[in-house]
Amino acid sequence: MTVTYVVTSTMSSLADATTTIADLKERVLAFTRERDWEQFHSPKNLSMALAAESGELMEHFLWADSAESMDRCREDARRRKIEEEIADVVIYSLEFANVTGIDLAAAIEAKLTANAQKYPVEKARGRSEKYTEL
Amino acid sequence: MTVTYVVTSTMSSLADATTTIADLKERVLAFTRERDWEQFHSPKNLSMALAAESGELMEHFLWADSAESMDRCREDARRRKIEEEIADVVIYSLEFANVTGIDLAAAIEAKLTANAQKYPVEKARGRSEKYTEL
Amino acid sequence: MTVTYVVTSTMSSLADATTTIADLKERVLAFTRERDWEQFHSPKNLSMALAAESGELMEHFLWADSAESMDRCREDARRRKIEEEIADVVIYSLEFANVTGIDLAAAIEAKLTANAQKYPVEKARGRSEKYTEL
Amino acid sequence: MTVTYVVTSTMSSLADATTTIADLKERVLAFTRERDWEQFHSPKNLSMALAAESGELMEHFLWADSAESMDRCREDARRRKIEEEIADVVIYSLEFANVTGIDLAAAIEAKLTANAQKYPVEKARGRSEKYTEL
Repeated sequence: MTVTYVVTSTMSSLADATTTIADLKERVLAFTRERDWEQFHSPKNLSMALAAESGELMEHFLWADSAESMDRCREDARRRKIEEEIADVVIYSLEFANVTGIDLAAAIEAKLTANAQKYPVEKARGRSEKYTEL
Repeated sequence: MTVTYVVTSTMSSLADATTTIADLKERVLAFTRERDWEQFHSPKNLSMALAAESGELMEHFLWADSAESMDRCREDARRRKIEEEIADVVIYSLEFANVTGIDLAAAIEAKLTANAQKYPVEKARGRSEKYTEL
Repeated sequence: MTVTYVVTSTMSSLADATTTIADLKERVLAFTRERDWEQFHSPKNLSMALAAESGELMEHFLWADSAESMDRCREDARRRKIEEEIADVVIYSLEFANVTGIDLAAAIEAKLTANAQKYPVEKARGRSEKYTEL
Repeated sequence: MTVTYVVTSTMSSLADATTTIADLKERVLAFTRERDWEQFHSPKNLSMALAAESGELMEHFLWADSAESMDRCREDARRRKIEEEIADVVIYSLEFANVTGIDLAAAIEAKLTANAQKYPVEKARGRSEKYTEL
């Protein structure tokens, strides 16, 4: 398998509108395989890495209120770091799906369907309570 | 805007091979908008939700070693729950990208490129150390 | 070793004013040893459990703003659950200290001293920025 | 209020054997008040900080197995960092207890009592399953 990364930080070839989940999964898998890192990528370890990266994302917003947290996503230098953190979260999610054979699009569709039953529009509109408290 | 979820858990219409990131982002955004939940979805709150869901995913593997964690992903009942947890993580990631206007595919590509420089194949192969220790 | 828990939820014999860290560490260690759970309590696993419990604590405050999060700590039913979550976090912290031989009081004292240098009163007063940005 | 930190990293005056939870809570509260940081320390924000610090602790053990994670706690340079991370976790736990008025020793005692009922010695000995699966 030959994977060539010609992308530079100033020229990005991928975009959400045209990139499938499978495309990204393959990128991540190729990165892992080239480094022989599959041996470290158990579901346990990947779930830890995912949680640790989520923590790093959260650190950008610790003492801010909600409005300030949006402002921080607009400051250039910080925005770049935030993009890196959310990218890390999704990279580990994709790799978790790779090693466990989970189809993320199908899993997300199923979860949104389940959530729609827990949170019917007429009951949940404008409310943040958990479905057990609605 | 009309969004209809005809999908059932036994019939899934989406699959990673054909679903773009933008498709999933739209699904999540539609779900949020129907419920008027955008008011709760600040970057701060979404990063918390993401970290909390990562914690729930991790709970499936707490006391298992790496090999056992893979076994757990194969048990039917548990697998369904694990699929739900990783779906939740990605749903919140997609919504985070929605509210901040981040293109995830571009961010992931940029991060993989940066990682490739931190972890060149010849130095990183088969090693789990952080790049600062390679 | 005989450990007897005669405490009931309505009668609590311990209190912060008179309980040392060592007292609590012993309680947790006894609980673990009675169940032969030391085999599962590696630093890795305990750090995961700690992070997972932190996530559960956080879930009580996901969509609340700061003021509402304080209100939630005052509602009786929820307060009990919040007490359980923070107890879990500290229990795992104590057990982490047990298995690694860390003296928590000394570690906390050292960390507060280090923090006092990073955040001198005159520079940090009333500000939430990270020390690198002060 | 006068709080003086004469402690240096080479001379530590506190130890688990003689330090009460209340002693540590006061230290942390004094540190916070001197900096007028109570305004940032809502339960929500403190739970986030706690989860983020747990994530940092976890990062030391991401790709290690259980035995290696113990080895890492013995390496001098890394041990110091691990001590700092667990100290941060407990500092935020103490401050969470401060702002919510929770007595940690009582909460821990109550939780251990509840856990003892969920995990009776004869059923739980040597087993890592959740109580719902025992």
